[in-house]
Amino acid sequence: MSPPIASEFRVIDLIRKKRDGGALSAAEIGYLVEGSTAGSIPDYQMAAWLMAVVLRGLTREETASLTDAMLHSGEVLNLSFLSAGKVDKHSTGGVGDKTSLVLAPLVAAGGLFVPMISGRGLGHTGGTLDKLESIPGFRVGLSVSEFHRVLKACGCSMIGQTEKIAPADRKLYALRDVTGTVESPYLICASIMSKKLAEGTDGLVLDVKTGSGAFMKKEEDAVFLAELMVETGERMGKQMVALITDMNQPLGRTVGNALEVQECIEVLHNGGPADLRDLCHELAAWMFYLGGASKTVAEGKQLSHKVIASGQAFERFRQMVELQGGDISTIDDPMRLPSADHRVDVSSPQAGYVTAIACENVGTACVILGGGRERKEDSVDPAVGIVINKKIGDRVSAGESLCTIHCHSDAQAARAKTLLERSYQIADRAPAPKLNLIHRVIHKRNTEL
Amino acid sequence: MSPPIASEFRVIDLIRKKRDGGALSAAEIGYLVEGSTAGSIPDYQMAAWLMAVVLRGLTREETASLTDAMLHSGEVLNLSFLSAGKVDKHSTGGVGDKTSLVLAPLVAAGGLFVPMISGRGLGHTGGTLDKLESIPGFRVGLSVSEFHRVLKACGCSMIGQTEKIAPADRKLYALRDVTGTVESPYLICASIMSKKLAEGTDGLVLDVKTGSGAFMKKEEDAVFLAELMVETGERMGKQMVALITDMNQPLGRTVGNALEVQECIEVLHNGGPADLRDLCHELAAWMFYLGGASKTVAEGKQLSHKVIASGQAFERFRQMVELQGGDISTIDDPMRLPSADHRVDVSSPQAGYVTAIACENVGTACVILGGGRERKEDSVDPAVGIVINKKIGDRVSAGESLCTIHCHSDAQAARAKTLLERSYQIADRAPAPKLNLIHRVIHKRNTEL
Repeated sequence: MSPPIASEFRVIDLIRKKRDGGALSAAEIGYLVEGSTAGSIPDYQMAAWLMAVVLRGLTREETASLTDAMLHSGEVLNLSFLSAGKVDKHSTGGVGDKTSLVLAPLVAAGGLFVPMISGRGLGHTGGTLDKLESIPGFRVGLSVSEFHRVLKACGCSMIGQTEKIAPADRKLYALRDVTGTVESPYLICASIMSKKLAEGTDGLVLDVKTGSGAFMKKEEDAVFLAELMVETGERMGKQMVALITDMNQPLGRTVGNALEVQECIEVLHNGGPADLRDLCHELAAWMFYLGGASKTVAEGKQLSHKVIASGQAFERFRQMVELQGGDISTIDDPMRLPSADHRVDVSSPQAGYVTAIACENVGTACVILGGGRERKEDSVDPAVGIVINKKIGDRVSAGESLCTIHCHSDAQAARAKTLLERSYQIADRAPAPKLNLIHRVIHKRNTEL
Repeated sequence: MSPPIASEFRVIDLIRKKRDGGALSAAEIGYLVEGSTAGSIPDYQMAAWLMAVVLRGLTREETASLTDAMLHSGEVLNLSFLSAGKVDKHSTGGVGDKTSLVLAPLVAAGGLFVPMISGRGLGHTGGTLDKLESIPGFRVGLSVSEFHRVLKACGCSMIGQTEKIAPADRKLYALRDVTGTVESPYLICASIMSKKLAEGTDGLVLDVKTGSGAFMKKEEDAVFLAELMVETGERMGKQMVALITDMNQPLGRTVGNALEVQECIEVLHNGGPADLRDLCHELAAWMFYLGGASKTVAEGKQLSHKVIASGQAFERFRQMVELQGGDISTIDDPMRLPSADHRVDVSSPQAGYVTAIACENVGTACVILGGGRERKEDSVDPAVGIVINKKIGDRVSAGESLCTIHCHSDAQAARAKTLLERSYQIADRAPAPKLNLIHRVIHKRNTEL
């Protein structure tokens, strides 16, 4: 599907076409992506084109063409040697959003393969690779052959982006970052999907977050992006679904790398907080369904509960950690994971109910503690974080702890504490019944849910 | 008025603001223009901002701020030593549009100063500098002190853009040219006005062309640009008017550099074709009025007729040519101007009436002959061109010459001839009464016209 370089195109004509609201052909988009990646098209021309895309949009065909051209700018993994269905999940990013660590081993335990390529945290959201690296020794930088070996052995493997996957995206993303052209659902879709489709899976479950802790605060924006990604994936022959899920408060009870790994282990032991457990089962159910391990989504959910309850999911996790060089003694005894001894409580100024949490601030507080990145090149402290004691709808008494900061000193906690104090909204009356965790499911085919 | 560099601005924020439809302050626009000119803001960021401007537009305040920042990126001529009013005229470009060569000496003869900085032809339109350079020896590259001396001596001087005038425009125009961001009335306005205001005149008459030979084919686009330029000039304290004039056929009877100079000399001798004469008198009348040489535009027109009839206008032209190094024997005897001996007639295929002329094609035919530029670095042949024998509404018999190509050989004329044959539309019935030469006058003040 990779379009050939057609030297008869003139970049200026392609910029004008998009500027004037026209639609580009797959060959024209391929020409731009290849030229940009090779460096033969200067950044200023790509920047003008990207801004025209932000303001004029792309058709569904153009979005698929752009995704395809970016996907084929690099390597597409060939996992045809694997004997069963291959699925993955992608989240648009949230606070305390740690489902990947549960889902990969869980779905592998249910009989599918999960070749998961993840990213690092940026901005107020955490990243799967940072969480995994809080397990001492865990290697996210496997070679392709190591990745294949781990996948074959335990059904799942979790690694970072390689240089060879979608180089066009790396180039374009760096340009978008400095030209005000990040915020376009079409460009976001192509960026995400080009990387995820490079994994060579049959199906992909999208967890599109919306709310105060998500990149898309408005549900309509989340739905628009979700529909775009589902349609783009389907055009490219993939089984797709998107779940629009709530991110108005942190998911689960922990924010911070080692704290989140610990919470995932609880879920894999059939424990952990209800919202995190529920979301894992929902996402796993769809992964099973799309990957052909269950006939219906409901059946997929039963399977999910079964492999958790039987301990098989935990066993797969333990096995993956071991195969990727991680210290399994920290998995067997999570108290051995990196931890920060100092505790600072954020107390409620009054009695009442938690009516809202400025969730992005909670993520930012964790970044301030050193548990996330302000710039790409920053390193993260696996030990620090925040334990959420009260969530929306919970009753609190005056002076009761809303959340607890895990850190190394009072001084270190000061800024994060101030931010967290401002993030909780307490009122005398209980809030309206809370939103469902799953706001909406976007799936183009008729499905027995 | 030049805004100070405010280092607290972030380019990315200014790009986003325009992308999202916001308006930038004068200081913000000044920051972008200065940074772009100095090279501290990379082209890819300016390209993204320019595309956002093309698609989101600028407010009137922003347009004035941009014009002002570009104007003050370089030198503004100080002509306060001149004793009378200073005016100029700018045309948006047409085919056979040669009024500048008549107007500068004509208005100088009427008592005003005309410090005219002009451009070269590009695309299908001719350029004043190319026409002047068909006079052997004529120098358009005077130093500022030479320019002052000629102005003082004969009331007018015609030169080319200097390196010191509006360097921001040169930089931005080169970027716009390759990023599809030329076609924005706001950017066109700022580009034209920043250069014209650098001349330090009190008033400016704009000749905004519309029709098949103009850059703005649609009258509404011409009116929009004209209003923008008039308002921008007035905000900056200048006397302004714009005439929307017809460019559905070449102006006058000649297209081509030396041929056009010859026609201008005819007009200065109180002859020449009626449309060219009429337009010169209209534009001169407004120049006299804006420059304070007449109390009304009507009075300005009387003055225009007077200085032509008396031979004073021609005398000024002759004087300017001499002062700028031109061979005045060619002015006294225009047959001595460069000429091409070979003639190729384009004949009418049928009897009838000329109902339309694809005027841009006539300009392109002249470029093909070598009388204009396909690329900036091309040189032009002063001798070649086209003499228009039939214009819209004229009756023709079968085989009668519609226009005559002046060139060096049949072979050279072949492509131009084919193009010209296709440019004339001949029908059995006469066309509807032709449009007025002046479609509209845009002037903000109440005027006794």
